[in-house]
Amino acid sequence: MRIGELSTRTGVPVPTIKYYLREGLLHSGELTSPNQAQYGDGHVRRLKLVRALLDVGKLSIAATRTVLDSIDAPDSSLHEVLGIAQQALTPPLVTDADATDLQDAQQLADRLIAGRGWQVEPGSPARESLARIVLTYRDLGQADLLVLLDEYAAAVERLATAEVAAVGRRPDPDSMVEGAVLGTVLGDALITTLRRLAQENASARAFTAAAD
Amino acid sequence: MRIGELSTRTGVPVPTIKYYLREGLLHSGELTSPNQAQYGDGHVRRLKLVRALLDVGKLSIAATRTVLDSIDAPDSSLHEVLGIAQQALTPPLVTDADATDLQDAQQLADRLIAGRGWQVEPGSPARESLARIVLTYRDLGQADLLVLLDEYAAAVERLATAEVAAVGRRPDPDSMVEGAVLGTVLGDALITTLRRLAQENASARAFTAAAD
Repeated sequence: MRIGELSTRTGVPVPTIKYYLREGLLHSGELTSPNQAQYGDGHVRRLKLVRALLDVGKLSIAATRTVLDSIDAPDSSLHEVLGIAQQALTPPLVTDADATDLQDAQQLADRLIAGRGWQVEPGSPARESLARIVLTYRDLGQADLLVLLDEYAAAVERLATAEVAAVGRRPDPDSMVEGAVLGTVLGDALITTLRRLAQENASARAFTAAAD
Repeated sequence: MRIGELSTRTGVPVPTIKYYLREGLLHSGELTSPNQAQYGDGHVRRLKLVRALLDVGKLSIAATRTVLDSIDAPDSSLHEVLGIAQQALTPPLVTDADATDLQDAQQLADRLIAGRGWQVEPGSPARESLARIVLTYRDLGQADLLVLLDEYAAAVERLATAEVAAVGRRPDPDSMVEGAVLGTVLGDALITTLRRLAQENASARAFTAAAD
């Protein structure tokens, strides 16, 4: 198909497609004349992934290119590709923290990860984020709520197994990565929203006389 | 203490504290001369709360003000106050949507809520958000991942019961509301981060040969 049809099929305007081509987010089409290129289904799929990373994942052009490069790298395993995509979706959380307090929170985070037997790289940004969030609970005098930590961890462990299985049922690496990225970002929103609804229900049951 | 010491004790720069005062996020100090005010421990705690809502909760100034107002509001039931705070933490999700598609997604959301027996107000913003998130999965061609919806709902239902119980163990309504607000915001960050870690583990186990 020509670039006009690629635009129609994906809803991405032609000037935007040309911008992605210049930025290396989309492979060139096959030249059929000096001024005309042909595009295929692979371009349609890649263009949807690019839009997902930019619009839903809120990634920068540079971060999007990093994720796409990892998909295209010949020797990368699916786990490596997912890791690169996930790191791009987990900006490091920066907070003010006393060094001793932070070290203590990092030990708690490491113990939780080790205690569950989770295989997590030492440099994974979520590991550092976990420590800083724990520290924030403590700094704000909410350490009593950390009694929930193990329950949160057990819940997301069950969910992650189901999530990875769902993505693993996809037919090819591009759509698996697309599913991992979109499933991560949309899943954040879905879980947050369902949690609000479940909390409203739990609050009604606990704190109103009328509730059954 | 003077504003300089308030700044030292909280790590918040003086110009930022003055900005929060102007925006009504922090109660005025007690004037001891036309140009000087005294601040107390209540200001220290409130300032930490403001930073938590802005930095960890990623709330806007306006949403932060609404949450703080709800904590300070007298004469409401705990469930009502929690509802007000929760709505500020649940900005309505706006998406382009075909009316028929949206109605269909709303029915799915309503069926899920009814099916679980959740007591949720008809106008609860999370109800509308749920429908729009479901629609976004579908629009982006990720409807296969909605197979996880019931599992997400069951997980947050268990968590919400534990969360409300933890907050209910607090000694007074003020700290219950504070715990509900901070537990909601910090819990979003905590669950998101734990989910990244659990996904890295699940991916390692599913997609690398070396995993146990």
